[in-house]
Amino acid sequence: MTNTQVTLVQIDNYGPWTVTPEPRREADLQTLQSRLYADISQFVGNRGGYVFFTRFDNMIAVTNGLSMDDHALLQESVGNRYPVTLSLGVATATSPVQALADATEHVQDAGSAQDENRRECLEGRIVDDTSRTTEDIQIAHFDVVNATGNYTDELNAFDTFIEIEQGYAELMRHMRYAHDSLSFFVGGDNVIVVCPDLEKPDYEEAISHVKAAVDVTMQVGVGRGENAHDAGYAAKHALETCRSDGTRVEFEW
Amino acid sequence: MTNTQVTLVQIDNYGPWTVTPEPRREADLQTLQSRLYADISQFVGNRGGYVFFTRFDNMIAVTNGLSMDDHALLQESVGNRYPVTLSLGVATATSPVQALADATEHVQDAGSAQDENRRECLEGRIVDDTSRTTEDIQIAHFDVVNATGNYTDELNAFDTFIEIEQGYAELMRHMRYAHDSLSFFVGGDNVIVVCPDLEKPDYEEAISHVKAAVDVTMQVGVGRGENAHDAGYAAKHALETCRSDGTRVEFEW
Amino acid sequence: MTNTQVTLVQIDNYGPWTVTPEPRREADLQTLQSRLYADISQFVGNRGGYVFFTRFDNMIAVTNGLSMDDHALLQESVGNRYPVTLSLGVATATSPVQALADATEHVQDAGSAQDENRRECLEGRIVDDTSRTTEDIQIAHFDVVNATGNYTDELNAFDTFIEIEQGYAELMRHMRYAHDSLSFFVGGDNVIVVCPDLEKPDYEEAISHVKAAVDVTMQVGVGRGENAHDAGYAAKHALETCRSDGTRVEFEW
Amino acid sequence: MTNTQVTLVQIDNYGPWTVTPEPRREADLQTLQSRLYADISQFVGNRGGYVFFTRFDNMIAVTNGLSMDDHALLQESVGNRYPVTLSLGVATATSPVQALADATEHVQDAGSAQDENRRECLEGRIVDDTSRTTEDIQIAHFDVVNATGNYTDELNAFDTFIEIEQGYAELMRHMRYAHDSLSFFVGGDNVIVVCPDLEKPDYEEAISHVKAAVDVTMQVGVGRGENAHDAGYAAKHALETCRSDGTRVEFEW
Repeated sequence: MTNTQVTLVQIDNYGPWTVTPEPRREADLQTLQSRLYADISQFVGNRGGYVFFTRFDNMIAVTNGLSMDDHALLQESVGNRYPVTLSLGVATATSPVQALADATEHVQDAGSAQDENRRECLEGRIVDDTSRTTEDIQIAHFDVVNATGNYTDELNAFDTFIEIEQGYAELMRHMRYAHDSLSFFVGGDNVIVVCPDLEKPDYEEAISHVKAAVDVTMQVGVGRGENAHDAGYAAKHALETCRSDGTRVEFEW
Repeated sequence: MTNTQVTLVQIDNYGPWTVTPEPRREADLQTLQSRLYADISQFVGNRGGYVFFTRFDNMIAVTNGLSMDDHALLQESVGNRYPVTLSLGVATATSPVQALADATEHVQDAGSAQDENRRECLEGRIVDDTSRTTEDIQIAHFDVVNATGNYTDELNAFDTFIEIEQGYAELMRHMRYAHDSLSFFVGGDNVIVVCPDLEKPDYEEAISHVKAAVDVTMQVGVGRGENAHDAGYAAKHALETCRSDGTRVEFEW
Repeated sequence: MTNTQVTLVQIDNYGPWTVTPEPRREADLQTLQSRLYADISQFVGNRGGYVFFTRFDNMIAVTNGLSMDDHALLQESVGNRYPVTLSLGVATATSPVQALADATEHVQDAGSAQDENRRECLEGRIVDDTSRTTEDIQIAHFDVVNATGNYTDELNAFDTFIEIEQGYAELMRHMRYAHDSLSFFVGGDNVIVVCPDLEKPDYEEAISHVKAAVDVTMQVGVGRGENAHDAGYAAKHALETCRSDGTRVEFEW
Repeated sequence: MTNTQVTLVQIDNYGPWTVTPEPRREADLQTLQSRLYADISQFVGNRGGYVFFTRFDNMIAVTNGLSMDDHALLQESVGNRYPVTLSLGVATATSPVQALADATEHVQDAGSAQDENRRECLEGRIVDDTSRTTEDIQIAHFDVVNATGNYTDELNAFDTFIEIEQGYAELMRHMRYAHDSLSFFVGGDNVIVVCPDLEKPDYEEAISHVKAAVDVTMQVGVGRGENAHDAGYAAKHALETCRSDGTRVEFEW
């Protein structure tokens, strides 16, 4: 059974900071946001977790394997090197959405995202070390079948983007409402989904749904593991099987 | 009249590179993609342009002010510091979508995104220096009215993300099909749109459309300039007027 | 008694890479070297270690607390994100210089720094986890007394640099030959030294030596710990005592 | 005749910032310093200049080709993305040391490096655009003959470092006092020197001096150009000639 540890990473008072005393150059904000995300990706990723950029001022991470001390260190390091600070909420649940909701509440209880007095909140609970199993995380790695041939090499780059985006949006809503799952676009034509215990029919149905709704054909590799990296890496291998065998849903176990 | 110079930035042979000889750690791919984007944002931004991460392996930039030599230097610098290389297509048109389509064709004509022999293509035309005017670029900076109060401080972080994403998707498709415009989510609840010469009613209609379709309320500041930074910075100021006056559409001229 | 775990980090085949097929832009090499160092600093630092830039193609780290798996992960992550790869040699000894010599030999035995076939060597031994104590590392943090008043605000920036550099060079050679210690300039007027078990008279003598040889007056805070961060942070606090009390040598225990 | 434009880049109030309210993690300071330097290297380098890390809180750049507006943009961009700010002094002279001295005075006149009220000073004069020639900059790129064979593959990494460092220190002092030149270690076994109009005998003498003083054998390639990149790139090519022909001093013109 899955036991997903989710961390909500929220930049403190970011909206006001971006326009005080004057609006800041957009290119600089993009650079700051991207490099902050990249740093968090290294920190979390080097401990077996995954973090997704989401809205950049709010980022969602799967952090099985990270302790509260690890979270505190991340906060301290960012506070030493950036002109902004982070608040972190941590929670665990069988359902990824439930874990994320609890993590969000920890941060919301500490104060508004635009409360200038709320700084570096750190609240929540991690998965107990002795309870961890290799079934804690289920990750599904979707991509669009032959995106390069069907879109990238054929349409203009924005219309290709619209197609990919529609596929992502449809999948994201379906997986959240039907399966309590969290889906994230990770570049190219790839979507990584953090799931509870789902079965092959669930994935086949998701793919059919997206095909029917927006005419985008997807395939998926699914993996399990003790942490996001283990599960996600297994999912990547399963996806390679889809590519080589021409199948649509592959499990790595 | 607008005269938008658009550059398509495409990483050469990226899909195959990410899985050769084996799939690479996802956290490392995210770090690489984000830092590459951040570097391009600094290079383009320091010359008055804007670049949007789009799909990360394909990025769209508004590059009025950058010469072909500037583009070549960007390619060279990235080639010296990353394990991947970039192909660039450049084009100009009154219509942003048309410019982007022509830029895309330059890259497609050089070879497939997954053609391992196509490396560092650089093709296209820039806006003639003597033809540049302060009306070349029109940028609209949208955001969601009181996103923090309505969503961020109230819903779980993924459901907030779904709301923002739906608003973006609706706006993006409307602006592309009705107005040949290119819309990009830039973090938080912000969307920056690269437009041709649009009028107040066009923006009021776009906002109504989004409200009616997905029940997300947006506001917009619009600016013009000789380059993306000038237009975008003016748009940010206009958006501040929306925030302080409670209006929905403000032009900075 | 100290038990220093030292890692030599050497970029594979770097010299040839910088000039093949043609010399690369110097500014890009500087950017690459600095960002690679910064990444290693985060990776090692987040695990309680310290890494010093040294010559940038060869970097020396104090890695008590990092396992061989950690070293392998660092190699993998760098290999995924940079156009170069790293070889790592790891060794432990009471004497920092001895540990560094053994670590160097591991890399040299694998092949020349400019052997294009030697890639990602990983050899050596870490401190046994059960043997670790809070006296394993002794770190001394030196700085120049009132550098700002005596030099930075008075001389031109290069002559100030010459003064600081002379102080560093004299201290570095003295500490290496008299005390088997490894000294590293870390910016400003600061030098961090990795020592075996030294006593107050040893530090007083080092300071006198530097004063007599090049007329640069230094002070030092000394700390001990299970890893470089613990020892180094204690040393920083001791140095603050020097600053506030006007003393020259302070121990944090 | 040379006409060197030098910029002193000084972080405002850095010393106090590093220990307020408490000392900061050393690994984070190293990361911050290195990434800030890397960013400045890209900004300056992309405009044909060179910047050297020097002491990290004080960096020296050769900025022929950068206007005062460029300097202001660099300041603004850093201020938007880092927790520190920069003060910049700019000056030009036939003598590199004189230009650096004048640049330093501009910053010193604005206030102490540790004056918390001195922020983002920008003072000085650039080379007049109409006066620029391809002889404005002379750059000499030295390296140690067969450093890999003589040191890197033979000695422990710190003893190799000591040898390289001694060669650098001797060269640096000689070039400054005998020739008003500014010398910078740039990694590996490389030293880049910013010179006035020097002749072959001057370089032969410098090399003899270093050999006699510390028994380190160096070679040098010299180039000239309108900016640091042009001169430096020519110097790199000349150095390749030394390597292939076994000579000690080569001019690229």
